[in-house]
Amino acid sequence: MGDRTVITTQVAIMGAGPAGLMLSHLLAQAGIDNTVVEIRSREAISSTIRAGILEAGSVNLLVDSGVDNVLRNGHEHEGTEFRVNGVSHRIDFKGLVGQSVWLYPQNDVFDDLAARREADGGDVRYSCSNVDTADLTGQPKVFFTDEDGKDFELRAQILVGADGSRSHCRFAIPESERRWYFNEYPFAWFGILTEAPRSSPELIYANSEHGFALISQRTDTVQRMYFQCDPGTNPADWTDEQIWEQLRLRVNGNGFELKEGPVTDKVVLPFRSFVNEPMRYGNMFLAGDAAHTVPPTGAKGLNLALHDVRLLFEGLDSYFKSGSSAILDSYSERALDRVWKAQNFSYWMTTLLHTVPQEENHAFFRARQLGELGSLLESEHGRAYIAECYTGWQTK
Amino acid sequence: MGDRTVITTQVAIMGAGPAGLMLSHLLAQAGIDNTVVEIRSREAISSTIRAGILEAGSVNLLVDSGVDNVLRNGHEHEGTEFRVNGVSHRIDFKGLVGQSVWLYPQNDVFDDLAARREADGGDVRYSCSNVDTADLTGQPKVFFTDEDGKDFELRAQILVGADGSRSHCRFAIPESERRWYFNEYPFAWFGILTEAPRSSPELIYANSEHGFALISQRTDTVQRMYFQCDPGTNPADWTDEQIWEQLRLRVNGNGFELKEGPVTDKVVLPFRSFVNEPMRYGNMFLAGDAAHTVPPTGAKGLNLALHDVRLLFEGLDSYFKSGSSAILDSYSERALDRVWKAQNFSYWMTTLLHTVPQEENHAFFRARQLGELGSLLESEHGRAYIAECYTGWQTK
Repeated sequence: MGDRTVITTQVAIMGAGPAGLMLSHLLAQAGIDNTVVEIRSREAISSTIRAGILEAGSVNLLVDSGVDNVLRNGHEHEGTEFRVNGVSHRIDFKGLVGQSVWLYPQNDVFDDLAARREADGGDVRYSCSNVDTADLTGQPKVFFTDEDGKDFELRAQILVGADGSRSHCRFAIPESERRWYFNEYPFAWFGILTEAPRSSPELIYANSEHGFALISQRTDTVQRMYFQCDPGTNPADWTDEQIWEQLRLRVNGNGFELKEGPVTDKVVLPFRSFVNEPMRYGNMFLAGDAAHTVPPTGAKGLNLALHDVRLLFEGLDSYFKSGSSAILDSYSERALDRVWKAQNFSYWMTTLLHTVPQEENHAFFRARQLGELGSLLESEHGRAYIAECYTGWQTK
Repeated sequence: MGDRTVITTQVAIMGAGPAGLMLSHLLAQAGIDNTVVEIRSREAISSTIRAGILEAGSVNLLVDSGVDNVLRNGHEHEGTEFRVNGVSHRIDFKGLVGQSVWLYPQNDVFDDLAARREADGGDVRYSCSNVDTADLTGQPKVFFTDEDGKDFELRAQILVGADGSRSHCRFAIPESERRWYFNEYPFAWFGILTEAPRSSPELIYANSEHGFALISQRTDTVQRMYFQCDPGTNPADWTDEQIWEQLRLRVNGNGFELKEGPVTDKVVLPFRSFVNEPMRYGNMFLAGDAAHTVPPTGAKGLNLALHDVRLLFEGLDSYFKSGSSAILDSYSERALDRVWKAQNFSYWMTTLLHTVPQEENHAFFRARQLGELGSLLESEHGRAYIAECYTGWQTK
């Protein structure tokens, strides 16, 4: 214990993913001292492949803070395509609600923020171990060993848990002080990277009786695609040909054919909904995946995390500048308003587009689903409602 | 068999509910001979209490055919109210989509049509028994005994089964020639009539953690109200006070109080979705409840029946005038397009507004439901989409 170095800061942040680094960056710009503690290496985070659809509000948060690579390297998508049994229906985001989204992978968001924190001399400690927390209702402390094996005690006025879905911080909340909401889904997503040209300029959300598929893009020569699969699927069991057969069945038709290439990455992504309420315990606040997980269908995970950070920064900035905790005290309620809209949207997009083969009344559900898709996609109001949810709600 | 009187007509119609009588009336106006066979008495049909929200298209069908009491005795509703945990949100149908609905009970629609058929000398046989059908793929025949005990054989070119949810006609289709879609719900509606003034000028759809309630109107002095209950509920077990307690819990609050009075009628309504596909077998066509049942939440039952009749009349009119069956042959597909939109809307309104206490992940579903209600009701696009579905889709 004698060789533990004490560091004092205003805000301790657990987790150097996009949420933690975005908050660290905003706080630093506002002159609020902060330290970030992360158990993974910078390289490990940077190389974890994630999706990346940014709402207009997420792009604005980055760009307004001076992190604007997204404008040069991202792709603005003014709409998306729903394909139902091989028939295309475009949802014109820009025309319907005046907003667009940006395709910009989460890794790139991380790389931009990590580079900016480094350039600005931010205190971000990657590859930490032996992480623990204490005194969450008083002066929060984070204990950790850095990558050189040195032990630290970080003392802060506020601790932010932005440490992802396996969050240490969330588990530090006593059971009596939080409520967990959980939903499981009877399927997963099989995700691939393929060396092929773009099949389409915009994302394609495909509904077919063979199951769901999502055709996304990454670069001119590498594409990201997904298809609904059983949660017990082992990606190693699948050949390229078997993968392409599933994608063709679900997407091709009426003159449209996917552009195929070698599959360079295979992964099975779990599907679940989770919320921890409230997003605060004492002087610790949760942000992003530490507090909530959404199924990937609505592309909301990263956007919710950045929205949490925006609200949390407003609260912290006001608290450290005025001494009033009024805005900070409203953080959990304000953040959860959007979290539950996004949970619903993700759940709804999932039930709208996936097949649920296990249901006894499968035939009713499939016909009802096609009725819902018809009702929505033939209606300007229906398409506008989807566009509004997809591009992101106004902040309350 | 020797004393069986043979009648010949162009269209035999089974069922003298609103669907059967509306079709009979339209056919008669077009000079197409038809006979209606009904097992219930006219008084029994007239006194069966049913809800009555008419879409604009249903009102137009009645009024354009000269049956226009609805304009004098019905009430135009330009919107409706969603109450979520005691907080009101109005959906302005007229402002959002330029259409309204009319409150006009189904009994009154029946009485108007029955009186008009009688005045026009229509051949409508109530109180029939021993009803049977034959030769559905050739020249259809209906056998029946009339209320005086006389036996008849009705020979027609086309038979229409508009004989309600316990349809004889539907059951006459061989199993190999039809597909049934079915969904059950874990609750029912407890419906009452009460002698009280109107509590509200428009319908109130109330969502609360105690369950769903619907506040409707009938006359200046008699009101219709419903609340979600267990399907096994026996209405006789419930006192007026117990009923009002449930309604108060679900609707009252924030200065709003239901106007209470003696309960004069109590009934428990089952909740189910059903579709028979296709809506044709040989020369027999199904219309209304004979082909499909929706939960009452979306107020679609009578409207779907009248829409079926509209499409079926177009097909029959063209067939008898031009000899071409092209429009008639498209009847089932065209009708089912709207049936599945309505099935979805009814299912969606049900899951949006009711509580499902049996679910394991009840907490997630309740919070998600409130997220969905917030997302929809705060959005002009969401409200417009609800308004479009509720007031009725364009005919394809």
